[in-house]
Amino acid sequence: MAIQVSVCGPRDCTPEEEADAREVGRLLAERGAVVICGGYGGVMAAVAAGARAAEGTVVGILSRPDRQDANPDLSIVIPTGIGEARNLVIANSGDAVIVVGGSWGTLSELALAMRHGRVPVVQLGGWRLLDRDGRPVPGVRHAASPAQALDMTGLWP
Amino acid sequence: MAIQVSVCGPRDCTPEEEADAREVGRLLAERGAVVICGGYGGVMAAVAAGARAAEGTVVGILSRPDRQDANPDLSIVIPTGIGEARNLVIANSGDAVIVVGGSWGTLSELALAMRHGRVPVVQLGGWRLLDRDGRPVPGVRHAASPAQALDMTGLWP
Amino acid sequence: MAIQVSVCGPRDCTPEEEADAREVGRLLAERGAVVICGGYGGVMAAVAAGARAAEGTVVGILSRPDRQDANPDLSIVIPTGIGEARNLVIANSGDAVIVVGGSWGTLSELALAMRHGRVPVVQLGGWRLLDRDGRPVPGVRHAASPAQALDMTGLWP
Amino acid sequence: MAIQVSVCGPRDCTPEEEADAREVGRLLAERGAVVICGGYGGVMAAVAAGARAAEGTVVGILSRPDRQDANPDLSIVIPTGIGEARNLVIANSGDAVIVVGGSWGTLSELALAMRHGRVPVVQLGGWRLLDRDGRPVPGVRHAASPAQALDMTGLWP
Repeated sequence: MAIQVSVCGPRDCTPEEEADAREVGRLLAERGAVVICGGYGGVMAAVAAGARAAEGTVVGILSRPDRQDANPDLSIVIPTGIGEARNLVIANSGDAVIVVGGSWGTLSELALAMRHGRVPVVQLGGWRLLDRDGRPVPGVRHAASPAQALDMTGLWP
Repeated sequence: MAIQVSVCGPRDCTPEEEADAREVGRLLAERGAVVICGGYGGVMAAVAAGARAAEGTVVGILSRPDRQDANPDLSIVIPTGIGEARNLVIANSGDAVIVVGGSWGTLSELALAMRHGRVPVVQLGGWRLLDRDGRPVPGVRHAASPAQALDMTGLWP
Repeated sequence: MAIQVSVCGPRDCTPEEEADAREVGRLLAERGAVVICGGYGGVMAAVAAGARAAEGTVVGILSRPDRQDANPDLSIVIPTGIGEARNLVIANSGDAVIVVGGSWGTLSELALAMRHGRVPVVQLGGWRLLDRDGRPVPGVRHAASPAQALDMTGLWP
Repeated sequence: MAIQVSVCGPRDCTPEEEADAREVGRLLAERGAVVICGGYGGVMAAVAAGARAAEGTVVGILSRPDRQDANPDLSIVIPTGIGEARNLVIANSGDAVIVVGGSWGTLSELALAMRHGRVPVVQLGGWRLLDRDGRPVPGVRHAASPAQALDMTGLWP
């Protein structure tokens, strides 16, 4: 069974986040990893496009019960029908989770992945978390580039 | 994107159901369909084994949040962490649903697929439903063999 | 904590099923049980109306993420946002499950309640299940009246 | 139908957070609001205890499919069986969401509530979010005391 990496990020993203997501997708496909994503637009579409361009496999875990609005680069579509609860499914399905950019939905995926705590979570850009004393909440790894994001997963030592 | 067919059935199954499931998996893989299943034992393991033996792709939608007890023939593992609610995800993910054998969990998948009503549902063996007047509840197609089950999906006219 | 009883049934129901559901709601409220239901129309609305008329408490577990289409007799509304997966929540929330009438959604609730197997499941009218040999699938209790349905739960010996 | 307020917070909390949660529960009950919470320990148990001491109604939305580990102050128990996806149910069930303290699970609830964006979200203590430019992410209201948290919901003008 191939390594699976969940890539999370907002539908409304910046051009830089889109480029980063595309590059993350390409690099994951080149290393033979299956990409898990939310299956819609923005970062989700970009990571899928990047992976497909490199002949990778992309699974889209949709919130809707049907394929409406799914991006065109998915190899496999899982229309869950459980709404935003599908964010948990995405968080649970990766051997690592890479987060590109920030939004409330994206943050919920990051938080659910950190909550179960079974796999490395790497952030590329996006929001920062401070605890009640103003210090960074420990746990999430911060990468400066798509390539470093993959390295920080520790999946390819 | 390949055709996806969800195959449902009990963990505790008869040898005949297991053989049927294996054959359904083989036939689906030969026709290029991705098999979606519950990812554990019994019918789920048999359909996965049949598809993998024919070099097919098998997605296991697990109830657990991790890979524990997943069968060894899955190409892609989706550990949902939503318990039996994952039956809805299985019911939603097929362009058709094929049910092999009967159990309460299996019945819930059949019922959820008939509930959304978007795709053909074909039963091979298993339980029968009568309405309050003792007549068969319409909607589910009943096949006499694995090959006929695939034909009755209407996906390969 | 009060006894909780989940009452399941179709949105599109017969006048007889509606009357049965209303009576089930009334009887449950009179015995001090909290009614759990799906929160929309048909059997769900009738059981809620019956319970509220007897000053009972009714919880509506909605499939939608908001209160749209909720019936007016709910004391507490739980808009899950998980679609039909909310049927599992209903099946899990009762100390007993009473099913009035039949539909695919209703059948999924009955099946999920039998799947976990922790509480009595009583059917009033609705569909019948036969196993592969044409015999009734054991487990569900069949009542002939609302009063008998409550008795068959075994919650009030 | 009564106002419903979801109160989120970690199982492992500080004595101060526990006191705040208890006070939030008491104040909500005194104003006639139904308290929705996760139903287990820490902040969840404290808000339930506070509300019950003031004769309020408390609904516990559990991740487990049964009542194991539920706190003793729940009026109504909803054992969802959908794991951490129940955080979405909590986020969707309040006319406002009050967050006491911080943890990854708590953050997922806050994020899911902000994601749907239908109700005010008020934080008492806990973590802070900065966007990519180091500025506070707008949207969540920050209260300095339990009483102010209730006021900031805008539900009692």
